[in-house]
Amino acid sequence: MIYKVDLNSDLGESFGAYNIGMDEKIIPLISSANVACGYHASDPVVMLRTIERIKAAGAQIGAHPGFPDLMGFGRRNMSISLEEAKAYTLYQIGALGGMCRASGIKLQHVKAHGALYNMAAADYSLSKAICEAIAAFDPNVIVLGLSGSETIRAAEDCGLRVAREVFADRGYNEDGSLVNRNKEGAFIHDENEAVSRVVRMVKEGKAQAITGKDISIRADSVCVHGDGEKALLFVERIRGTLKEAGIEVCGLGDL
Amino acid sequence: MIYKVDLNSDLGESFGAYNIGMDEKIIPLISSANVACGYHASDPVVMLRTIERIKAAGAQIGAHPGFPDLMGFGRRNMSISLEEAKAYTLYQIGALGGMCRASGIKLQHVKAHGALYNMAAADYSLSKAICEAIAAFDPNVIVLGLSGSETIRAAEDCGLRVAREVFADRGYNEDGSLVNRNKEGAFIHDENEAVSRVVRMVKEGKAQAITGKDISIRADSVCVHGDGEKALLFVERIRGTLKEAGIEVCGLGDL
Amino acid sequence: MIYKVDLNSDLGESFGAYNIGMDEKIIPLISSANVACGYHASDPVVMLRTIERIKAAGAQIGAHPGFPDLMGFGRRNMSISLEEAKAYTLYQIGALGGMCRASGIKLQHVKAHGALYNMAAADYSLSKAICEAIAAFDPNVIVLGLSGSETIRAAEDCGLRVAREVFADRGYNEDGSLVNRNKEGAFIHDENEAVSRVVRMVKEGKAQAITGKDISIRADSVCVHGDGEKALLFVERIRGTLKEAGIEVCGLGDL
Amino acid sequence: MIYKVDLNSDLGESFGAYNIGMDEKIIPLISSANVACGYHASDPVVMLRTIERIKAAGAQIGAHPGFPDLMGFGRRNMSISLEEAKAYTLYQIGALGGMCRASGIKLQHVKAHGALYNMAAADYSLSKAICEAIAAFDPNVIVLGLSGSETIRAAEDCGLRVAREVFADRGYNEDGSLVNRNKEGAFIHDENEAVSRVVRMVKEGKAQAITGKDISIRADSVCVHGDGEKALLFVERIRGTLKEAGIEVCGLGDL
Repeated sequence: MIYKVDLNSDLGESFGAYNIGMDEKIIPLISSANVACGYHASDPVVMLRTIERIKAAGAQIGAHPGFPDLMGFGRRNMSISLEEAKAYTLYQIGALGGMCRASGIKLQHVKAHGALYNMAAADYSLSKAICEAIAAFDPNVIVLGLSGSETIRAAEDCGLRVAREVFADRGYNEDGSLVNRNKEGAFIHDENEAVSRVVRMVKEGKAQAITGKDISIRADSVCVHGDGEKALLFVERIRGTLKEAGIEVCGLGDL
Repeated sequence: MIYKVDLNSDLGESFGAYNIGMDEKIIPLISSANVACGYHASDPVVMLRTIERIKAAGAQIGAHPGFPDLMGFGRRNMSISLEEAKAYTLYQIGALGGMCRASGIKLQHVKAHGALYNMAAADYSLSKAICEAIAAFDPNVIVLGLSGSETIRAAEDCGLRVAREVFADRGYNEDGSLVNRNKEGAFIHDENEAVSRVVRMVKEGKAQAITGKDISIRADSVCVHGDGEKALLFVERIRGTLKEAGIEVCGLGDL
Repeated sequence: MIYKVDLNSDLGESFGAYNIGMDEKIIPLISSANVACGYHASDPVVMLRTIERIKAAGAQIGAHPGFPDLMGFGRRNMSISLEEAKAYTLYQIGALGGMCRASGIKLQHVKAHGALYNMAAADYSLSKAICEAIAAFDPNVIVLGLSGSETIRAAEDCGLRVAREVFADRGYNEDGSLVNRNKEGAFIHDENEAVSRVVRMVKEGKAQAITGKDISIRADSVCVHGDGEKALLFVERIRGTLKEAGIEVCGLGDL
Repeated sequence: MIYKVDLNSDLGESFGAYNIGMDEKIIPLISSANVACGYHASDPVVMLRTIERIKAAGAQIGAHPGFPDLMGFGRRNMSISLEEAKAYTLYQIGALGGMCRASGIKLQHVKAHGALYNMAAADYSLSKAICEAIAAFDPNVIVLGLSGSETIRAAEDCGLRVAREVFADRGYNEDGSLVNRNKEGAFIHDENEAVSRVVRMVKEGKAQAITGKDISIRADSVCVHGDGEKALLFVERIRGTLKEAGIEVCGLGDL
């Protein structure tokens, strides 16, 4: 049996004179890049440069729409209407998608950012509005969402292909949701354990919840970070372990 | 001989709780609508609603990109780089184009807004940057620019189709440029004269400059306004006169 | 016994090319004006012009800080931190306060806007953060907040003077909170009843809750609107009835 | 004879999740800090934290207003009206001034940022509008502007105290203006020469223009940068040389 998994990372988050992230270093290590679209981060010049960089490295590209909250980096919950959710998604994926088209690279997937991602994961209606925008824009685009979340359910209901995202360094509740960041067990601090969990999720579709009980969890893509040297080393480590475990890293379009 | 001309208007400029313009009344009177893209005016919800409204009325749609200056409504000159001009254009036409695609209507043209339109009309390099963005996005999109301007020249150099815009109520210099708004002769106040000038521009390709001399000027599209009852009446009047003169009003795609 | 009440209205909400509200008509009818500060509405030019207009009319001025959400007009809940709440308040009241100082008029009060007003009314910590900013800026500024709310309690705990706001056209629950806009009884549609309720709140400190039970409610200021001819007529009506009832309309500083 | 000079630096330019500059390291080395006000950079939380940091270090504080162009970091020319210039200045200095007041520290000076600084230096009317805003806000605030520029002239005409800024690493034309960045001689690359020039400007009020001719130039304050280790070393070097030359470094309020 052949096992495959995608490694995705949020990037292209610089803005004007402000640089953030280590895009040049993380891009060669991942198979899918989630590119910010100018609402919670990024600007058109950054987006275009980021697309060219990802294209040159051969990774796949996804849009990473967020709340219109640059000051809060899209990390603050906002109570937007479903019409707004749909329109904001369409605006952002259209903008990035247009640049991909101009650069001759396919827009492969969409992953919501920050607070929008988290709110949508728990809110079917919000996810549905986002997915309807995606389906209307291009029914071939893959929705990358939290494994087991309402986003995955809504995307499937919209007839879209889905990719289930897991986190190497986060604890899970029995219902498959992430342990709240403020609670004990929210983070897996042992890197060996984190990497082993990923391998098990990919091969067995299982993970141990914080209660100790095994739960089912599908892993199509693992979220990794490129915001520091330590984060980059961890990604290299995951890549090495996946290879040893016979798991191929490939973009969402090739799963 | 069959004469044709397009009537275009800037609209979809409302923003959030702010309403501007009389879109519902002007849309049935025009053949092409220039829709703001969220930089100098509009927001995603307004854009989507505006596209649906234009589609329902059967008019053609164009993107109306402007400077990132909501507070100044895109009417203030900004010294942006060519890379920024290209990226800002791509971002905005991608966003609107994505919505058109989602709504099943073609993005027919692009017309720059306000200060960007005026600066580009006199600046070949700026026009070139804008047109390169358009050509990379979709080589079938028509560039609507000031008749005789650098924008038209740059668009043709990029292999794009062009539509030359004229103004019914504005005076022209001998070189085909618009008389500066602060100078005498900048505006044609007599409505009869304004309408007659349009007919002559369409049929003869000529207009009298403020110096009294006849100049050549091609008119593919006439810019009209929908920001008041008086403006709407003037559009109806132009439509009537064009019909009497045997000039058919049709969208840019049908010229 | 002399009865007094303030009539306040939100204004100065225009932005750039966008006009909203009928400021010139409502200003002569009110005693206190809440001026938007550029976050949810307004811009520096509008703010300065609004201050001059209010000064000329002799009304008192308050700052009306809101969420940094121009697209949503500050009406959408946002999960900001207490540090952000304090800093955003300070920024906005400082900006408006600086203009008042430059125009030689006193900044008399502060009233939070929209979603920030509503969230703060029910959240002591959020209100406390806002009030700490106000107290640090100027301990003489009056806090205008929902009668009976956490905002009033927090303002008093910060040693600030308070003014309790009531709504003529809204139903109240037994605990003094406003009936949710989506529920029956949220609005008082009968204008006579609305005006009578205000008179009773001012004179007796009582109102009938939707349950039919009388509740205590202090009314230092009544919120009125200037966003339409009907709203303006209603304000004139309230003024007339208050006068007949022997209630003097005066600014917050004169209560 | 006692010689004094101020060392000023632009800081507090971080925004939301974006960090820029090495504020903690540059603050102890300067006597005056120009704090961004949220238009071209910074946000209220950053502003407040920056003020506290400067206060703790004992440096003096100035407002650093710029164009409303976060995406361009205020470095792009914008054609704003005089009314807008006045209102934007008032808004920004009011916001920062309000925070200074809340933090119990004096707002000592105002220095325009980037493109606004450069445009104002050459445009008396623009400088006048900015200075009128400052004078209306607080006639005791010092205007820090390019030595010999229209800004200094306008500030004096408004009855404001002025501080003339010089640049250690920039070449000067015979008329006292800075050599255009694109021309040869724009930058003084030799650090020894740069430092010596500053000493001569402070002591003799003279500098050699790129033509070789000596020109008069008053130096009340030297602009230094804190955006890298090299820049910080240069500031330490200037401090050392100034001390050896018997020139005291002190804030604008103590000149």
